[in-house]
Amino acid sequence: MKKIRAAIVGYGNIGRYVLDALQVAPDFEVAGIVRRDAADIPDELKRFPVVSDIACLKEVDVAILCTPTRSVETYASKILKMGINTVDSFDIHTEISGLHERLGEIAKKYNSVSIISAGWDPGSDSMVRALLEACAPKGITYTNFGPGMSMGHTVAVKAIEGVKAALSMTIPVGTGIHRRMVYIELKEGYDFKRVAEAIKTDPYFEHDETHVMQVDSVDALKDMGHGVNLIRKGVSGKTQNQLFEFGMKINNPALTGQILVATARASVLQRPGCYTLIEIPVIDLLYGDRKELIKHLV
Amino acid sequence: MKKIRAAIVGYGNIGRYVLDALQVAPDFEVAGIVRRDAADIPDELKRFPVVSDIACLKEVDVAILCTPTRSVETYASKILKMGINTVDSFDIHTEISGLHERLGEIAKKYNSVSIISAGWDPGSDSMVRALLEACAPKGITYTNFGPGMSMGHTVAVKAIEGVKAALSMTIPVGTGIHRRMVYIELKEGYDFKRVAEAIKTDPYFEHDETHVMQVDSVDALKDMGHGVNLIRKGVSGKTQNQLFEFGMKINNPALTGQILVATARASVLQRPGCYTLIEIPVIDLLYGDRKELIKHLV
Repeated sequence: MKKIRAAIVGYGNIGRYVLDALQVAPDFEVAGIVRRDAADIPDELKRFPVVSDIACLKEVDVAILCTPTRSVETYASKILKMGINTVDSFDIHTEISGLHERLGEIAKKYNSVSIISAGWDPGSDSMVRALLEACAPKGITYTNFGPGMSMGHTVAVKAIEGVKAALSMTIPVGTGIHRRMVYIELKEGYDFKRVAEAIKTDPYFEHDETHVMQVDSVDALKDMGHGVNLIRKGVSGKTQNQLFEFGMKINNPALTGQILVATARASVLQRPGCYTLIEIPVIDLLYGDRKELIKHLV
Repeated sequence: MKKIRAAIVGYGNIGRYVLDALQVAPDFEVAGIVRRDAADIPDELKRFPVVSDIACLKEVDVAILCTPTRSVETYASKILKMGINTVDSFDIHTEISGLHERLGEIAKKYNSVSIISAGWDPGSDSMVRALLEACAPKGITYTNFGPGMSMGHTVAVKAIEGVKAALSMTIPVGTGIHRRMVYIELKEGYDFKRVAEAIKTDPYFEHDETHVMQVDSVDALKDMGHGVNLIRKGVSGKTQNQLFEFGMKINNPALTGQILVATARASVLQRPGCYTLIEIPVIDLLYGDRKELIKHLV
């Protein structure tokens, strides 16, 4: 069996877990890692080519983008034009539709496949939301996140003057409403009350119940566990009160990394174009003989 | 917009709920109902063509098979050969793979589409199981059913000598193990203890903890509510202890009917052949503009 050759683009938190998932997947081969600083090679990467440009890697079938969300489009556009598939976990919900369209045009032109927003939310949660809407077309779905660290909110806190280190935890209070628990270390010479007020009135926080706490060490609080509780109550046909619930308690970057690898596998089965996970048959995410998978899972 | 013309084949419990779901779906039109006795027309069917042979209905795009599982293959084979798509909720797990292959050959030859086992289990649960295996490829999934009435077990009890009426309830006790609570009315002249023993040693029950109770009226106990609790604990990449849970509490035939209609919608988007739900992009099950669906759900 010819293995799928995958490149990891960006080697931060998610990149590390993507490497884990690639190493245990029987149908994948690590083509190499792309880093801005290719001279910085941690021990676990010594057996792989580490380069600063994906063009320096041989026979790459798919690039798994583990860069910050804001850089996804630049990397994906460039790599799709080389005829290499890309997958990413782009997570700005309001911008997915535009990205879908732009990368779709490039992918079709250059005969490659892009699967975007393939983490857990957006990603696997999106598939559950779509499935539950098929099960009960009328009704309301609530996606409740956490408890877990919000990357976006943490970055927003760090940008506020006087903050030395920060952690923003997302706490679900039900019906899609979240409490923000913000832990900060203060820079010297700053007043905690004023910094806390600046956080609470920041656009990221002003609509949520937000509590800010000063701590000695933010690092001592960090845990990459996260969770979701997704609820739909709706109507099947004319029958009311159909109740659905999906939940998980997971290591956040580990799940993202695993889903990215499963999506990379699916990418080689699609026709040129751009897709989100809800446009992909779920069986394409899985390793193994299709007949056996159907026997085992259906 | 041209509507999808659907025929309901078989008008029992599920057929009735399929009619409900078709009537509220904006993109469907009821082409008619196929019954063995086409002269038996209940009030709610008076506005539709009721026939004994689907060939008597005009321009049918898809036939929704609501017959007993054992008749699915006969009906599907015949209808697929007419170039009409079929969907069904065939539920004998061990026979899905064979059915898939046989109907696939017919569908490809006659340019039609068959989507099989499209209820909730097999069906939507299968999609969740496949998705969770993509999220955590190593691990164990437990599907816990109930509390709810098991059709198969109820039929098995009714076949036992001395049983006048029966209801077999499936009670989840965890890790995929189920207790069977069997309620029966006894025929005159039969000994309860001997009948109960015959039930407990029946192949359907001998491996489960089974309790048999005699009641005055089985009908007074009947409720079409059902449920599932599906659990996976597994490994994403090299990260252990990833926890997933999916549950629902639903009206059983209403959900089956709704999923069959969503699947009928998906059938017109597939290339000729036979599919299970895990081979279908979940977005194809949904009504509406695809761009809007992606914006709303991803």
